[in-house]
Amino acid sequence: MTAAPLTVVVVGGVAGGMSAATRLRRLDESAHIVVFERGPEVSYANCGLPYYVGGVIEDRQALLLQTPASLHRRFRLDVRVRHEVERIDTTAKVVEVVDHGSGRRITQPYDRLILATGARPRRDEPDAVTPTRSLRTVEDADVIEAALTRPGLPVVVVGGGYTGLEAVENLVARGASVTLVQRGEQLLAPLDVEMAAPILAEVRAHGVDVRLGVRVQEVAATGVTLSDGSVVPAEFIVDASGVIPEVGLASAAGIRIGATGGIAVDASCRTSAPDVFAVGDGVEKQDLIGGGEALITMAGLANRHGRLVADVIAGRQEAARPAVGTGIVQVFGVAAAKAGWSEKQLRAAGRDFYAVHAHPASHAGYYPGAETLSMKLLADPASDRILGVQIVGRDGVDKRVDVVATAMQAGLPAAELAHLELAYAPQFGSAKDAVNILGSVAENTRTGTTPSLQWHELDDAVAAGATLIDVRSPAEFAAGAIPGARSIPLDELRERIDELPAGPLVVHCQVGLRGHVATRLLLQHGREVRNLDGGYRTWCDATGASR
Amino acid sequence: MTAAPLTVVVVGGVAGGMSAATRLRRLDESAHIVVFERGPEVSYANCGLPYYVGGVIEDRQALLLQTPASLHRRFRLDVRVRHEVERIDTTAKVVEVVDHGSGRRITQPYDRLILATGARPRRDEPDAVTPTRSLRTVEDADVIEAALTRPGLPVVVVGGGYTGLEAVENLVARGASVTLVQRGEQLLAPLDVEMAAPILAEVRAHGVDVRLGVRVQEVAATGVTLSDGSVVPAEFIVDASGVIPEVGLASAAGIRIGATGGIAVDASCRTSAPDVFAVGDGVEKQDLIGGGEALITMAGLANRHGRLVADVIAGRQEAARPAVGTGIVQVFGVAAAKAGWSEKQLRAAGRDFYAVHAHPASHAGYYPGAETLSMKLLADPASDRILGVQIVGRDGVDKRVDVVATAMQAGLPAAELAHLELAYAPQFGSAKDAVNILGSVAENTRTGTTPSLQWHELDDAVAAGATLIDVRSPAEFAAGAIPGARSIPLDELRERIDELPAGPLVVHCQVGLRGHVATRLLLQHGREVRNLDGGYRTWCDATGASR
Repeated sequence: MTAAPLTVVVVGGVAGGMSAATRLRRLDESAHIVVFERGPEVSYANCGLPYYVGGVIEDRQALLLQTPASLHRRFRLDVRVRHEVERIDTTAKVVEVVDHGSGRRITQPYDRLILATGARPRRDEPDAVTPTRSLRTVEDADVIEAALTRPGLPVVVVGGGYTGLEAVENLVARGASVTLVQRGEQLLAPLDVEMAAPILAEVRAHGVDVRLGVRVQEVAATGVTLSDGSVVPAEFIVDASGVIPEVGLASAAGIRIGATGGIAVDASCRTSAPDVFAVGDGVEKQDLIGGGEALITMAGLANRHGRLVADVIAGRQEAARPAVGTGIVQVFGVAAAKAGWSEKQLRAAGRDFYAVHAHPASHAGYYPGAETLSMKLLADPASDRILGVQIVGRDGVDKRVDVVATAMQAGLPAAELAHLELAYAPQFGSAKDAVNILGSVAENTRTGTTPSLQWHELDDAVAAGATLIDVRSPAEFAAGAIPGARSIPLDELRERIDELPAGPLVVHCQVGLRGHVATRLLLQHGREVRNLDGGYRTWCDATGASR
Repeated sequence: MTAAPLTVVVVGGVAGGMSAATRLRRLDESAHIVVFERGPEVSYANCGLPYYVGGVIEDRQALLLQTPASLHRRFRLDVRVRHEVERIDTTAKVVEVVDHGSGRRITQPYDRLILATGARPRRDEPDAVTPTRSLRTVEDADVIEAALTRPGLPVVVVGGGYTGLEAVENLVARGASVTLVQRGEQLLAPLDVEMAAPILAEVRAHGVDVRLGVRVQEVAATGVTLSDGSVVPAEFIVDASGVIPEVGLASAAGIRIGATGGIAVDASCRTSAPDVFAVGDGVEKQDLIGGGEALITMAGLANRHGRLVADVIAGRQEAARPAVGTGIVQVFGVAAAKAGWSEKQLRAAGRDFYAVHAHPASHAGYYPGAETLSMKLLADPASDRILGVQIVGRDGVDKRVDVVATAMQAGLPAAELAHLELAYAPQFGSAKDAVNILGSVAENTRTGTTPSLQWHELDDAVAAGATLIDVRSPAEFAAGAIPGARSIPLDELRERIDELPAGPLVVHCQVGLRGHVATRLLLQHGREVRNLDGGYRTWCDATGASR
């Protein structure tokens, strides 16, 4: 005796929706699976769109991973593009759909409904007389691509997050003259200011006019007026000012929307309506660090939760893992990545934490091509649980963030990063890998082996009477130093210890390592001393000094 | 009241010994720390030596990370090179040392002794009339470098492990005509044969004459005679046939040597003699997978245990983590990495396991430069504990092995790899990262969602009456197929299901994914079916067919 085939309707045919539909077919050959996609394409590579604009991806077809025909052939999916679901009746268990091709309206019953409606551009910028597009769909990319008619075309990108930065890089690659307008005082809001600084420097070094702390006030044919009164030229505007969950359909159907603004779901991605599931950027996620709900819009989560919903519909017990929000972006060769919370977030939530910075090499220094990484780790001082990581650099960033994200998801304490056995050959790492070093710094800091202070605590420490000692070489000191620092190179410190004034000391070096050695030395000579965490490099990044 | 300063003697001044000495100074400013190194250099980059021979590292000085003078300046270490410790008296707590510079003998008392004597070449090859060097010291590299006097110089490398392969690559880079002699039937013994196959193919593609399953029988001026009777030309021999722990000193002092042949230590790296510690390649390690002791000779472990010994001597409670033996090697652009045990090891030990192969792309396929990875995961069918991982490919190998090694050390089950949130931008990964895919395949296999069989089980299955169905495209089938396979492309399988003969089926595709879809489809149509794990690609690698 076989149960009657299920009818499963999926709203939205990109990452989460299509993962659900294909996995469900693999688990249930008999189900009737209908996918409604309002746009002209399904299953396209939206993370590739900026690179199509920039010409890195040359073949437009490469963006279109599947078509309705290919999905029918392989998975017997009934995929209907240009079909917009306009209403859900959760009692009658039907959706009302308009076919934008024919103008016809359809009523489609469902046994299970999966909402994968995604997010939409926030678009709180004024209506534009200048052509404006976000960069979410293949059509968007086509329009932007077509607009780049001449070298030097003045383009304003609004928003300095992941997509905005990728847009900037690719517009510059196409010869556009780019102004980047960012509402916040830093680029890449998920990072702390000193960690976003290398990205800011890199973007500016590539000729981009970056305007921080301003909004677009008015758009006129003559240019874009910013909230500080300045006017920047613009013949095209790329709106990357962020997205908000697309919840209109769910909300109108009486499905519960969470406090974050995303559709509320349980660990099995069930909404408040019976037999209605939701996944992807429209849905709020369980946040591993915060414990509560958060909007974390990552393609990986959408895919994974799509697969999970199919498992649940097929009768399996599955629960989504709380999310750490691992993300990465690369701009002009510099990658910036994060997982978990930033220091800003932890402060705003009143969470207890300690922070460490490290600047290890991406691989053995004696092998060509090693690059200096900037790493920041945030952890709980009581449990040593890792709360967040941020990594910026030209090489090996993706690897290190993946290792720390894995450690976070597995619940490893920060000090345990020092003990991870990571693959070492000189092209790939060091006998003490960057992640090991980060763990050692965390352990030295948390246990009080090496007391440290943060860049933003330095002025207060000096005002309270501490003497700042720069233990770098005389050549490094001469090339640029923190105002007020006294130079005593580490290798002379033992002999010159009597030169040090009474009272508390702060020592620093270039990246923190020699400062650590100096701190240990001075502590054992009975001095009150702290190491400036992350050294001169972090201080420069934080204060805007060139390093 | 201060305790009298400790005298700590370190025997061996490279990775483990120098990590111990410098960490100890940071923890104990007063200790008298003496390091005896029998060679002319300390703290050199031995993992860089092949690349110095090959000219990748151009500056010899780059290999010399520290000198006795620099270590004295910064750490007040009393480092004595060309000083060989000849005897330890663990009762009197003294070591007897010969200074090879002056010929003088010294007796040096110690409060704590750290043995970091490392490993030495096995050198079981016959005495050579042809110049023969291993590649362990800077002097070795100098001698080999100097021997490469002309293009086409015939060189035999004995041993196809990590060092042997690196030597091969760099000798080829210098224009040598290289024969690689490997006793085993495959290169890279830590890997299983099908995973080492791409390395074998790559080495041969670069003109290296690889001889498997043979030993060097006799060395004469006319050439090297191998155990199969063949003679290969050789004007120089690089001996990379492996190392054994250097335990003569410890053994003569009555210090316990373990069954593995390495110095036996507890979790704090204490030997059987009071106040004598040992670290590095001369010491046996606790093996995370096996539970017992093993010889795992990795620079990272030597460094980490050196640091740990310093902590213990300074009065801290520290214990070494059991080792997973993460390792990586790159040859001609192809990297091969592993952590944990191989299938061979598990079989030899009679351990229960299941194996999966996957061949995902190193990053999003729509972004230029993606490479296909070969991945193998071994896990325990009862607990799903990860027992081993092997990864081979041209891009992103180091990242994936580090993520899986971290998961192993954290105790994550194999299926959990599917849920890791790994950083995704199209240059770096995919929305479903390679590691996620490996985890999904493991879960589908272990839960029986997709029954599979291994390449070495195929012949028996066919002999028992199974029909082999190749579900790849007709073009793929035409380009090369498994003998006896019938071609039914996946997208035609539903329509043509009645063509399938009765009885059990085995399906396969190129890498395993379409085979998985076909298996699910056929299972639901009531067929007995298994998917050939890893597909045609793994089958080719295992059987030596060109793919």
